Amino acid sequence: MIIMGVDPGTAITGYGVVRRESATKFTVLGYGAITTPPDLRMDQRLKVIYGEMRRLIDEFQPHWLAVEQLFFNTNVTTALTVGQARGVVILAGAHSSVDIAEYTPLQVKQAVTGQGRASKEQVGYMVRVLLGLKEVPRPDDVADALAVSLCHGYNLRKWSDGHDRNAIG
Amino acid sequence: MIIMGVDPGTAITGYGVVRRESATKFTVLGYGAITTPPDLRMDQRLKVIYGEMRRLIDEFQPHWLAVEQLFFNTNVTTALTVGQARGVVILAGAHSSVDIAEYTPLQVKQAVTGQGRASKEQVGYMVRVLLGLKEVPRPDDVADALAVSLCHGYNLRKWSDGHDRNAIG
Repeated sequence: MIIMGVDPGTAITGYGVVRRESATKFTVLGYGAITTPPDLRMDQRLKVIYGEMRRLIDEFQPHWLAVEQLFFNTNVTTALTVGQARGVVILAGAHSSVDIAEYTPLQVKQAVTGQGRASKEQVGYMVRVLLGLKEVPRPDDVADALAVSLCHGYNLRKWSDGHDRNAIG
Repeated sequence: MIIMGVDPGTAITGYGVVRRESATKFTVLGYGAITTPPDLRMDQRLKVIYGEMRRLIDEFQPHWLAVEQLFFNTNVTTALTVGQARGVVILAGAHSSVDIAEYTPLQVKQAVTGQGRASKEQVGYMVRVLLGLKEVPRPDDVADALAVSLCHGYNLRKWSDGHDRNAIG
């Protein structure tokens, strides 16, 4: 079972791909960031994000796309921009016929650190330890994406109860 | 010069297409709404919106897509959802190589009623009068989409000063 975690954003969309070997063991297949320059027009930035997502899905053939939800403690302008990036990421998954799940930052932190209000550093540390990496992946968006993929991996039992077709509302 | 105005939303995306005959004269070519049922998964709703937008662009061959920006006096959850719909609308424009412009609700109201804080009824009334329609198009999202197309039509002189490649940030 291969899971691609994604932390969407217009400037940086982090992604991380893991293979679930067992309920507690995961192997990293790849991770990185799709970046777009701030002086590029929004339509072209969204095109890059969508195109790269399609390419990465082709490359890694994930069974699931696990997408990070926005932290609610943010402002409307950020939410709108992140929403646009998120929309094209989800569309790329839909066009590639990948199942999609979403998790709030609180759920992700809870899953990988046991504490919903853990710091970024704590999440990065646990991602490094749980995946046996030498260093914490940078930037934060990449570590977050790997954390989302792990979060979905740990939650897979819930999803297999026939709820996978209602993954996202 | 054909302009397609769009008021994006996950449940209802209004569209309106006008041809600019002169600086002040516009002809309606078509209008309507892309609707998606609330019980459909988000990825499938975004797929419908994207697919219909591509189809409508093929049908009407607009030179411009004019997209309504979110009203800032809203909440983060709404902004995120509208952002997702907006992202796939803009992506559809980018994939169809249509130039894209965006306007705030304030700019749209100012353009069609002369008053940035005009009511929905006033906008609907002016859309009906300016386009010579028998009735105000329903729902509001459709009237709004036509208003955005008119707003861009009135603003076209500004856009032709070589700024059209920086249409949206």
